[in-house]
Amino acid sequence: MKLQFQKESLLNGINIVFKAIASNTSMPILKCILIDASTSEIKLTATDMDLGIETKIEGLILEHGKIALDAKLLFEIIRKLPDSESSVIIVSDNLFNTRIECENALFTIQGLDGEEFSYLPYIERDHYICLSQLTLREAIRQTIFSIAPNDSNKMMSGELLEVHDNILKIVSLDGHRISIHNILLRDRYEDQKVIVPGKTLSEISKILTGDNEKDVLIFFSKNHILFEFDDTVVISRLIEGEYFRIDHMLSNDYETRVKVNKREFMDNIDRAMILIRDTDRKPIILTIEDSNVNMRVKSSFGMMNADVSAQKTGRDIMIAFNPKFLLDALRVIDDEEVDLYMMNPKSPCFIRDEAGSYIYLVLPVNFIVEN
Amino acid sequence: MKLQFQKESLLNGINIVFKAIASNTSMPILKCILIDASTSEIKLTATDMDLGIETKIEGLILEHGKIALDAKLLFEIIRKLPDSESSVIIVSDNLFNTRIECENALFTIQGLDGEEFSYLPYIERDHYICLSQLTLREAIRQTIFSIAPNDSNKMMSGELLEVHDNILKIVSLDGHRISIHNILLRDRYEDQKVIVPGKTLSEISKILTGDNEKDVLIFFSKNHILFEFDDTVVISRLIEGEYFRIDHMLSNDYETRVKVNKREFMDNIDRAMILIRDTDRKPIILTIEDSNVNMRVKSSFGMMNADVSAQKTGRDIMIAFNPKFLLDALRVIDDEEVDLYMMNPKSPCFIRDEAGSYIYLVLPVNFIVEN
Repeated sequence: MKLQFQKESLLNGINIVFKAIASNTSMPILKCILIDASTSEIKLTATDMDLGIETKIEGLILEHGKIALDAKLLFEIIRKLPDSESSVIIVSDNLFNTRIECENALFTIQGLDGEEFSYLPYIERDHYICLSQLTLREAIRQTIFSIAPNDSNKMMSGELLEVHDNILKIVSLDGHRISIHNILLRDRYEDQKVIVPGKTLSEISKILTGDNEKDVLIFFSKNHILFEFDDTVVISRLIEGEYFRIDHMLSNDYETRVKVNKREFMDNIDRAMILIRDTDRKPIILTIEDSNVNMRVKSSFGMMNADVSAQKTGRDIMIAFNPKFLLDALRVIDDEEVDLYMMNPKSPCFIRDEAGSYIYLVLPVNFIVEN
Repeated sequence: MKLQFQKESLLNGINIVFKAIASNTSMPILKCILIDASTSEIKLTATDMDLGIETKIEGLILEHGKIALDAKLLFEIIRKLPDSESSVIIVSDNLFNTRIECENALFTIQGLDGEEFSYLPYIERDHYICLSQLTLREAIRQTIFSIAPNDSNKMMSGELLEVHDNILKIVSLDGHRISIHNILLRDRYEDQKVIVPGKTLSEISKILTGDNEKDVLIFFSKNHILFEFDDTVVISRLIEGEYFRIDHMLSNDYETRVKVNKREFMDNIDRAMILIRDTDRKPIILTIEDSNVNMRVKSSFGMMNADVSAQKTGRDIMIAFNPKFLLDALRVIDDEEVDLYMMNPKSPCFIRDEAGSYIYLVLPVNFIVEN
């Protein structure tokens, strides 16, 4: 095999597929990126057996072939090659000895047989949806924080993607909170309901360009999901099973509705968190009276007290939260003002917009009023 | 005590003295910053008993007094106060309860008695030198990397500062290499020879503004060194004892002198280091022949080979180094071209300029030539 690249496009391709490299595996082939130039195009592929990424890159095929190269070594070598106009040549022989040349620098590394590399599973492209890269990336950012990645409950480490008519609903939850985004699609599609590993979504959101003009196609099969965009294909295994039923936890009833300036509300929660450490996990207590929200934390480190003006509808209420859970949700909301809906100090608080494009449910915590 | 500040100047002062806060101490008072407004000015002080920093800050004294406040808590609170025009008020009562107010945010924290705070030692200001802040900061940056901070030999964790006539010499060494900077002072001073802890120098270099127009005064006493600049005073204990004699290790003789482009030489060492990991510490082998420097590394991860053009005087030579030691020195040299002076493959290599403003000695390592 003999290939010629511009450093930039090669490095860019490596960066994309690198996200599927398993961080700790004992199998050398899983640490590798496959460079496949056996046909008329050059493809890079990496997989950790759950998540696989394949991308096409620009380059000149001087001799067909394929080779598997250690991903970390390849990435470091290409990254540190001269940033010049000169091109990068990769040549490998029958024993998989591989030379990487650029200007006056020459590396020789030992590759592995490309034939040993596990191909990505074949997915039928029958059922799909289409949305912009920006929309998908934002929806992931706005929900991924409330998965429970290391929980014993595998379901909580993923997100629900549910398609119904022209709505894509994305849900994540961790037992203390639920995040829901409803995305209006341009067309109507067949119903789908799958649970996608959180890792897959977070890696994809790093690759998506965030371009509103460019689309991503999502294909669904029984055990896999496939994302196709630009020159890249991402295939992930799905999490098997039935996702949590959340409909009975949601409600539009409320006794108190309060509208606050998001920035001001958030800054005060952020301040309150200074006094909350692992050794003293105190809640933030909100006292909502008339057009004022009083925010207060008291821990062994000290006390914080702040007043934020608000527009209130309904009853006065005193309610307490883990400040981190409020903050996580507020951080990803783009609106300048947010509405909180509460029933009583024991029932979930909802942060949602009028249009129903996002719903954040946060459970309150018990509290004791001290002076 | 009741004081009023602009957030900016208070935060800036805290940032300066914070560098003397001990990272792990069991004494609560050593975790504190002293705010002293018992006279007509406001001073912040922190000390870990070896290093002490004091800085004056702008502010309005509404009621004299002093208070010691937990440094980390104070820093976090002030940092997260609103970035507004409103001023910050700090009030403490007889029981050292302290209120920090800014706009609608109020913090209450427990302070400690300012009288418990250890004052910085008094230093006679008889013996001193004067140089620009930029010069001192650069000289520290260009030598600090070759101390051995955790070595059993305490002397190696500090740097020698030696004044003779109008020269300040700064030396650091770790057993494998020596870094020397000679700084031409504007005046002649009394001879001085002290060993300053590396921590002191690295913290000072973070506070120095790097302004060439502003000076720093350095005062010497038997056991301490004092740096005075802007509104800040830094006092540090010295390391006791006699520093290593290095004069007999230095030499101007050489058999080979080679001038290379620093950037190109450095980039290739950087590339070579990709193949060197903890599990396989191979040296970089330089083969200097005529006007060419061949650089080569072979490890279990692969091989790198690069040629760099050079101007050579004297004999051809083959010599090997720990690439990190070469790289550390080259990184801090500002010249575009550097000269390496070598005697033989077993003797130290010197990287120095004609003017003698810097000398880096690097010991070579043994090597085996493989193909």
